[in-house]
Amino acid sequence: MKIAVIGGTGDQGLGLAIRYVKAGEDVIIGSRRAEKAENAVDEGEKFLNESHLKNLQGMSNQDAAVIADVLILTVPLQAQKATLDSIAEYVNGKTLIDATAPLNSNIGGSPMEFIQVWEGSAAERTADILKNKDVSVVSAFSNISSSSLMEFEREIDCDCLVCGDDNKSKQIAIDLINKLPGVKAIDCGDLSRSRIVEKITPLLIGLNIKNKTHYAGIRITGLDRI
Amino acid sequence: MKIAVIGGTGDQGLGLAIRYVKAGEDVIIGSRRAEKAENAVDEGEKFLNESHLKNLQGMSNQDAAVIADVLILTVPLQAQKATLDSIAEYVNGKTLIDATAPLNSNIGGSPMEFIQVWEGSAAERTADILKNKDVSVVSAFSNISSSSLMEFEREIDCDCLVCGDDNKSKQIAIDLINKLPGVKAIDCGDLSRSRIVEKITPLLIGLNIKNKTHYAGIRITGLDRI
Repeated sequence: MKIAVIGGTGDQGLGLAIRYVKAGEDVIIGSRRAEKAENAVDEGEKFLNESHLKNLQGMSNQDAAVIADVLILTVPLQAQKATLDSIAEYVNGKTLIDATAPLNSNIGGSPMEFIQVWEGSAAERTADILKNKDVSVVSAFSNISSSSLMEFEREIDCDCLVCGDDNKSKQIAIDLINKLPGVKAIDCGDLSRSRIVEKITPLLIGLNIKNKTHYAGIRITGLDRI
Repeated sequence: MKIAVIGGTGDQGLGLAIRYVKAGEDVIIGSRRAEKAENAVDEGEKFLNESHLKNLQGMSNQDAAVIADVLILTVPLQAQKATLDSIAEYVNGKTLIDATAPLNSNIGGSPMEFIQVWEGSAAERTADILKNKDVSVVSAFSNISSSSLMEFEREIDCDCLVCGDDNKSKQIAIDLINKLPGVKAIDCGDLSRSRIVEKITPLLIGLNIKNKTHYAGIRITGLDRI
């Protein structure tokens, strides 16, 4: 299974890409320009003290979308629509995991505050943009600190809340999430649940600022108790 | 310090009342009718295998509000305005902790879904209703499972997210929260943060339903990391 991290040159995308390379997955970093993706691959290889990794490639978002089976979207909200439009013709039959959190900072405000998008959540907005395509949208990763992702040698101390309408695609996402050491996937139900889950990100960013850290995360407790 | 649990005859209120009685606090259960509050005291004493507890009383919400220093509001959203109106003249100089979560079930829908109240959050609605009074409103407790609260012999495995504009009152709430065995208070910032925190409750209720449990809670991780 090939994973493409679409818009994967920032900390969130690069962090996920490197984590999955370490887990043995075939990973493609996509970017608007292929050159930028290739630079991110070089950067990733430097982080890993490796060169010419066979399971890490960089290319344009379009080429990445064509080749991969699972797409992880890690662009800021401002780039969401243009990026999705640019890969729309290649997404049929695939799973697209949306990692976007709709933060007020996306429109010039504070990252501690959310913005309410019309469709309900950023992930539902993705589903709406691609509504004429045969693609399954899953929401995940938006609560995981990019700083935690980028510390490749450490386990990540948080759960990952997953939402999606198609159980098969959601299971693909859950299996991928559980390959991140320390992280446990929590199935939160259908895609509309991302209306709540995405709002937790600005709460965690506020806690990061207040506590002078970059690693706030959440764990869900009590699910095993009867 | 006397604590009044306003509208404290349900599981959430009674659970908190009994927990604080066990912690040695002076607790008053308030209800619209004094008789109902007295019955809740009897019920609480039965749970604790005690009788005539000196530090647990039952009375009308009004009498409870007059006597107490800290008020914890544990009524459903439908009763929020009428209850607050009924105690408004007694709240000056006090701290009021709002434990309300605005669930869709409050208006006949699913408890897995939130409703968006005009003021932003239920706690901000409380502050708005009492805006002409000298009272500090703090948001807390809305994410803690009532079933966990009612299991008096067990520690509660979750954090309690606290929001408030007045630091002194927020500290009173934090100190109270940290008296619940197992629970850690997390200062989430000003009262408007309750717009996010209250929405976590329907997420946890959804997880309870999905996992056939009643004990879902959240913990915040990573705050101690630099």
